[in-house]
Amino acid sequence: MEQIENVLAQRYASEKMKEIWSPRGRILLERDLWIAVLKAQKDLGLPIDDDVIPAYEKVRDTVNLQSIKDREKITRHDVKSRIEEFCELAGKEHIHKGMTSRDLTENVEQLQVYKALELTRSKAVAALVKLAEKADFYRHRIITARTHNVAAQPTTLGKRIAMFGQELLLALENLDRVIANYPVRGIKGAVGTQLDQLTLFNGDSGKVKLLEEKIVGHLGIGRSLNAVGQVYPRSLDHHVVSALYQLSSGPSSFAKTLRIMAGNETASEGFAKGQVGSSAMPHKMNSRSCERVNGFHLILNGYLNMVAGLAGDQWNEGDVSCSVVRRVALPDSFYAIDGMFETFLTVLNQMTIFPAVIERENTHYFPFLSSTTIMMEAVKKGAGRETAHEAIKEHAVATVHDLRNGVIDSNDLLDRLAADDRLGLTMDELKQILSRGEELVGAASAQVDAFMAEAEKWKTAYPEAAGYDPGNIL
Amino acid sequence: MEQIENVLAQRYASEKMKEIWSPRGRILLERDLWIAVLKAQKDLGLPIDDDVIPAYEKVRDTVNLQSIKDREKITRHDVKSRIEEFCELAGKEHIHKGMTSRDLTENVEQLQVYKALELTRSKAVAALVKLAEKADFYRHRIITARTHNVAAQPTTLGKRIAMFGQELLLALENLDRVIANYPVRGIKGAVGTQLDQLTLFNGDSGKVKLLEEKIVGHLGIGRSLNAVGQVYPRSLDHHVVSALYQLSSGPSSFAKTLRIMAGNETASEGFAKGQVGSSAMPHKMNSRSCERVNGFHLILNGYLNMVAGLAGDQWNEGDVSCSVVRRVALPDSFYAIDGMFETFLTVLNQMTIFPAVIERENTHYFPFLSSTTIMMEAVKKGAGRETAHEAIKEHAVATVHDLRNGVIDSNDLLDRLAADDRLGLTMDELKQILSRGEELVGAASAQVDAFMAEAEKWKTAYPEAAGYDPGNIL
Amino acid sequence: MEQIENVLAQRYASEKMKEIWSPRGRILLERDLWIAVLKAQKDLGLPIDDDVIPAYEKVRDTVNLQSIKDREKITRHDVKSRIEEFCELAGKEHIHKGMTSRDLTENVEQLQVYKALELTRSKAVAALVKLAEKADFYRHRIITARTHNVAAQPTTLGKRIAMFGQELLLALENLDRVIANYPVRGIKGAVGTQLDQLTLFNGDSGKVKLLEEKIVGHLGIGRSLNAVGQVYPRSLDHHVVSALYQLSSGPSSFAKTLRIMAGNETASEGFAKGQVGSSAMPHKMNSRSCERVNGFHLILNGYLNMVAGLAGDQWNEGDVSCSVVRRVALPDSFYAIDGMFETFLTVLNQMTIFPAVIERENTHYFPFLSSTTIMMEAVKKGAGRETAHEAIKEHAVATVHDLRNGVIDSNDLLDRLAADDRLGLTMDELKQILSRGEELVGAASAQVDAFMAEAEKWKTAYPEAAGYDPGNIL
Amino acid sequence: MEQIENVLAQRYASEKMKEIWSPRGRILLERDLWIAVLKAQKDLGLPIDDDVIPAYEKVRDTVNLQSIKDREKITRHDVKSRIEEFCELAGKEHIHKGMTSRDLTENVEQLQVYKALELTRSKAVAALVKLAEKADFYRHRIITARTHNVAAQPTTLGKRIAMFGQELLLALENLDRVIANYPVRGIKGAVGTQLDQLTLFNGDSGKVKLLEEKIVGHLGIGRSLNAVGQVYPRSLDHHVVSALYQLSSGPSSFAKTLRIMAGNETASEGFAKGQVGSSAMPHKMNSRSCERVNGFHLILNGYLNMVAGLAGDQWNEGDVSCSVVRRVALPDSFYAIDGMFETFLTVLNQMTIFPAVIERENTHYFPFLSSTTIMMEAVKKGAGRETAHEAIKEHAVATVHDLRNGVIDSNDLLDRLAADDRLGLTMDELKQILSRGEELVGAASAQVDAFMAEAEKWKTAYPEAAGYDPGNIL
Repeated sequence: MEQIENVLAQRYASEKMKEIWSPRGRILLERDLWIAVLKAQKDLGLPIDDDVIPAYEKVRDTVNLQSIKDREKITRHDVKSRIEEFCELAGKEHIHKGMTSRDLTENVEQLQVYKALELTRSKAVAALVKLAEKADFYRHRIITARTHNVAAQPTTLGKRIAMFGQELLLALENLDRVIANYPVRGIKGAVGTQLDQLTLFNGDSGKVKLLEEKIVGHLGIGRSLNAVGQVYPRSLDHHVVSALYQLSSGPSSFAKTLRIMAGNETASEGFAKGQVGSSAMPHKMNSRSCERVNGFHLILNGYLNMVAGLAGDQWNEGDVSCSVVRRVALPDSFYAIDGMFETFLTVLNQMTIFPAVIERENTHYFPFLSSTTIMMEAVKKGAGRETAHEAIKEHAVATVHDLRNGVIDSNDLLDRLAADDRLGLTMDELKQILSRGEELVGAASAQVDAFMAEAEKWKTAYPEAAGYDPGNIL
Repeated sequence: MEQIENVLAQRYASEKMKEIWSPRGRILLERDLWIAVLKAQKDLGLPIDDDVIPAYEKVRDTVNLQSIKDREKITRHDVKSRIEEFCELAGKEHIHKGMTSRDLTENVEQLQVYKALELTRSKAVAALVKLAEKADFYRHRIITARTHNVAAQPTTLGKRIAMFGQELLLALENLDRVIANYPVRGIKGAVGTQLDQLTLFNGDSGKVKLLEEKIVGHLGIGRSLNAVGQVYPRSLDHHVVSALYQLSSGPSSFAKTLRIMAGNETASEGFAKGQVGSSAMPHKMNSRSCERVNGFHLILNGYLNMVAGLAGDQWNEGDVSCSVVRRVALPDSFYAIDGMFETFLTVLNQMTIFPAVIERENTHYFPFLSSTTIMMEAVKKGAGRETAHEAIKEHAVATVHDLRNGVIDSNDLLDRLAADDRLGLTMDELKQILSRGEELVGAASAQVDAFMAEAEKWKTAYPEAAGYDPGNIL
Repeated sequence: MEQIENVLAQRYASEKMKEIWSPRGRILLERDLWIAVLKAQKDLGLPIDDDVIPAYEKVRDTVNLQSIKDREKITRHDVKSRIEEFCELAGKEHIHKGMTSRDLTENVEQLQVYKALELTRSKAVAALVKLAEKADFYRHRIITARTHNVAAQPTTLGKRIAMFGQELLLALENLDRVIANYPVRGIKGAVGTQLDQLTLFNGDSGKVKLLEEKIVGHLGIGRSLNAVGQVYPRSLDHHVVSALYQLSSGPSSFAKTLRIMAGNETASEGFAKGQVGSSAMPHKMNSRSCERVNGFHLILNGYLNMVAGLAGDQWNEGDVSCSVVRRVALPDSFYAIDGMFETFLTVLNQMTIFPAVIERENTHYFPFLSSTTIMMEAVKKGAGRETAHEAIKEHAVATVHDLRNGVIDSNDLLDRLAADDRLGLTMDELKQILSRGEELVGAASAQVDAFMAEAEKWKTAYPEAAGYDPGNIL
Repeated sequence: MEQIENVLAQRYASEKMKEIWSPRGRILLERDLWIAVLKAQKDLGLPIDDDVIPAYEKVRDTVNLQSIKDREKITRHDVKSRIEEFCELAGKEHIHKGMTSRDLTENVEQLQVYKALELTRSKAVAALVKLAEKADFYRHRIITARTHNVAAQPTTLGKRIAMFGQELLLALENLDRVIANYPVRGIKGAVGTQLDQLTLFNGDSGKVKLLEEKIVGHLGIGRSLNAVGQVYPRSLDHHVVSALYQLSSGPSSFAKTLRIMAGNETASEGFAKGQVGSSAMPHKMNSRSCERVNGFHLILNGYLNMVAGLAGDQWNEGDVSCSVVRRVALPDSFYAIDGMFETFLTVLNQMTIFPAVIERENTHYFPFLSSTTIMMEAVKKGAGRETAHEAIKEHAVATVHDLRNGVIDSNDLLDRLAADDRLGLTMDELKQILSRGEELVGAASAQVDAFMAEAEKWKTAYPEAAGYDPGNIL
């Protein structure tokens, strides 16, 4: 029967992410680990000839999955078959000394997690930088801010984008800390006591300690754990997937808001180049990609719940009720976050706004939103405060009433206010108050600047990531 | 009708945690915020007389809930009634200037979270230090390590405790980073543009920026957010509750393992002083507290799932679909983690072990677990490797068979081996091999030392926390 | 220190729901169970004088919590103190014979669940009936249906309401099945073997079987379980809370859609009588209650996740890692669903629509949505199909373009089409096509009828529930 | 790059389950739907020649995935390419009339769910029947029942198995109701108003209603929904996955308990034929499959959480934020439950018990568990009740103390009691009391009978399912 494919990987994830979690990718990381252990063992005095490590390094990338499968049919042992394959390719027999299966699998899975975290960070940086560009680009575009989905005060689109960028920034900072503090289990033996490595080094615990340090150094991971059992604590997986979930929160909120804006026709996630809307419904630009971003966010919460079930459920030195769960939840979480960023970056690249519609919305709401300012100006011109308040309230309520009941088609509050002697304001004066939109958006621009400065730091730190362009999405 | 109480708070949480989240506690934090804002505003040149702030500070702790309720009946506005109460007590009218309701509520709720995080950290430090003491105390107690719940290799109880302590340590380090990087929303106005504070300072954005810095300084929180909407990003709540969940993972794994050990009668969570077991079932020491620790862990995952539903669901500048959720999930998460630590600390204080039963278990399993060493010794004495391997395997399989089928009552593998000429080992020699238990536990002791050193750092940093003793639990 | 209240119960739930889960309510159910057991035991020949049961029944409602607490201080046993209280009130000593603590607590908690399910069903029926009324009321109100939040085809508001009603209907049918099939654990003894009841009836297993049947009959629950351990299977709790979550889904989707409609000003959740909008922002009718409905939905998912952690985690004949979880999740789930329905019913009572705004929306979109029909009419009048298609597409795309770019302020597609000779349609003919809105909504009205018929069945079955009016909500 | 496979499908699920969800399987169900619609349309008078439907039916199974892909490259539309392929194979052009894409995809996905539910039911029946066989087989095997993982009372292994079977039985009954009441969306058009079908039948709503009834009849599903939007309510997916989660709860509890029993060596999940334990550790029979059952249970909870995020989140007539989530969660849930049953059935087939170890456990605990009976016998022989109670308590506490402190190696309580004049019982009399084990297990056997009777009903209803044997698992 046909092979059932992993939908998240095949439809949404990038090649790089698939490489990390693919059978081939895993074998490469296993070989990296074996080589790192060999180097450390040699450094610490185990008799390993100088040509051994280069021999393995030379064939590191020669991965023949079929050959390994053929070996497994004979040995009936997957780790063994990989050892044999690698050794035969290298023409040496030195790897896996003093190691148990878990010494290989735990650390390699952690390497996969670590590499995938790094790749994810680079995507997050790309998204952050893109958000900063957009925030800058739209910094003067005044829009009607909404709370409870109802018009509240003016703001700018740039500020709104910076707001969602701020959420991503927090999550990225956290991700960076997760990476910086990520500890590998290390070479600890069957129950975590390092018995086999100690035996290899004749009980010299100092050397065993050094061995660990050297291995993590070779692998490029910052630290290793001290007291573990057969496995590393599964709450670490929860910690990782939780960081991914946090990471998709800002984009998810952005996507929801863009879906709402599309419903008001103030903005759209846009189309791919060359794509056109339905001829029957030329107005119908569906927010399919934004909906997908929201979908990935839910998916991540599902995987988070899976690994949550593993945390705090270690029996004694460990069991493998986690095995099938991690086999699914770890790669699939990373495929999901990767697909999320591919989609989100595409949305950022293609989103468009409709300034005329935005203007219409502003014109509709700003007379209401400016009523406090209008009152203050009326008072300045000599009106009594209570009188002015009462007059404005009367007219505003009546205007809303008439708009909603079809008596009028557009907001004529200014006309009504200009015609009311109690306020003493002319139409010109009223229009001028409303035209001071830039003042009404407060620190919006300064916040965009501050956000851009933060994004710039990340761009500087990861210049290559910042320039990443997403692949073509479905 | 009688008031329905919050079970988590009333049955399990400590007074200090309840104080933070109680109506009274919340009012105190509101007042702290108002005073912090006043101080910042005064520093920045707003005309506030020197006696104003002291007047408020003096009455900060005078909380009369009934009086506030009475005011609310008249004003129909909860925040307003609290402003009036505080002002009347102080005999001043200066607080809440340029602030909207969210400027108060968001920041105060974050202060509650922050204080609760600090309190939780102190409990976690206490637990860590206690685990280190226990790990040290049991460092020489050799036990049978289990993987898949089946005997695997020797280890020590001290090492096993350090292993769970290691998981707690990771979570505590993470919690500490969460606290260190926790940002408050700050005084940002209705849609996050700081319009009202800017108006107060006549458009001087530099002063508004300084205002924020000063407030967070007064409050003792490290940083404030830049671009926000009506609310701070709700993924921050997820970040916090996720850290709590991670924090309960090590204790939860410990508790599960102790429940399993109790089933084998190798250990028990103990009894409170004076308590005795059932006379009808004197052997029945139920692991009720350990079960409860596991229960709290599940509860935290439920609250995590609640706040997960808020993250990534911000519409525009914010809505309040989060309101009822946060009202429940935030305090209740902290009551749960607090109850968890109270229970866990009690378990650590009262746990007992049964050395004789542990010895019986070791005696039962160690002959099997030592078979590799026995083989090596036989080879040293001249036996062929394959011959020795075959002989040992034969006897081991037969011994297990006879034990499980009732042919024998205790493990007699050594007798069988001593009687087999192929191995050439006497009973004395075999017994000597098994008696070298300390060697078989590898780096167990060194790992306990390393764990203790880590715990010591936290004890030094938080000496008061380290000495905390839990209250009496139900 | 002040008692911390249960927020869900005290702020949102109804008195009836609180009564079920309150300490007093629990004691009443305990007494119901004891009396049911007594009756069954007497029926089956145990020597219980005729005046015994009436004596207990007479004092069933006399609940003195303080007196029970005082007893507990002496006995140190909560169940015992309640037995004594009830016996002293009745002047008899016959209850709890052959029962263990779990025989009481498991069944009483199930009774609480059962009563709460029934109460919830009545609220769901009330909501269903109200939805049917609203669907009928708005059956001719043509609105612009949206998919992807973008205008798609005409429908009616009545049909939209019926659509959400359909979802509630499915959930209500399921809830009804959950209630109909809900099994109680029964009187099964410490490990589920009924040892104590068997002893009481001298080993007569037939009588023990009858005893169970009689008890469930007295209690009004349909069935009891056969083989259980100390506890009933915890997946049953998951089954129950899952049904509650499904139940809140229709209301939650309705609430989200109303929040979106409020953003377009086509509808509003309305205000309580006497309440007025902000004078500064008279247009600002926040969807606070709808947001709250969405919040309750998330809360229920959190509790579902808690009880999910209990299902499938029974060790042997049972443990109590479930204890603290169920103490929180069971009552709080029911408070949440109850608060959800109170809020939802209020929204249904108070919601208003703005026909003029709806009309403006229809006018804006219907020319696009009718393009297929227009083409068909043009063809009828003699235009070539491809020519007509091309002409309409040209004008539609241009119209959308001009609207979004501010060239025009309102949809003038009809003008453009009327002016295009290729189509041969006059403005009158075009207007007539658009005026046939009722035809364009297809089976909307028939679906409303069908939905109303279903709701009517429930109204007939539960006439009292159907007339329920919610209490005042915050 | 190599294709990433779906781990759940490829490693754990059965061929039948993969067939349902495979690209090929989906195409077959699409064709079934198209044919069902054709039949209904013909029945209702649409002009469809008699040879049309047979022409389609004849080629229904001719699925050429490559050919469809090639078409898609040209049409750029997946549904269209499948229509063309099917039509060309049949040599007719009649399918998909009056249908929109969602009319196809929603219903086909529901058909997949429905078929998968049926397949799952058959596996559940197989497991239930196997549990009944095992319960019968072990009905006389007396074991020590445990609560809190501590010995509590005697029971039988048969009863324990029936207890977990009872949980599965409840879940199976529920699943059966889910299937019986499962409604399909039906042919409802783009926004659910059936506009296109009504047009096809010239506005004859009666015929459109009949059409739906006929289609569901042809498909074998019981009912269709009335008022829907673009999509069916997503809470229905939650309802389905929730039933799967409930279904895995009994097996999961069974698996946990077997893992605990394996730790005590009273039972084992066994080995596959031919497989042998490690020679170095012949006692080490890891509960890998039981752990996997527990893992699948967690996985299902993760998918449940994903679909929970879709329920109650429908905007207007529908959006597709659900799309990517359902693409993952629906098939993968069914792969998981399928893999769970394959594994669980294997465990049931291969599990073994160790009677001698069970006996040793009973001998160790029964003297304690029987103390109440012993007291009653002593009283019968003339001892004072209080005196007897005191004597037994003294000896029991002392025995436990001596056992746990290594003073004695086996439970000698009977010796102590026989030697105490206060009781007046001889060793023979005491032994006789303990030998009445069958009495001490109460209604265990009757409960096994009752459980078997229930299982028999399902076996009769689904004889083929009952005989199912799992495939070879990894």
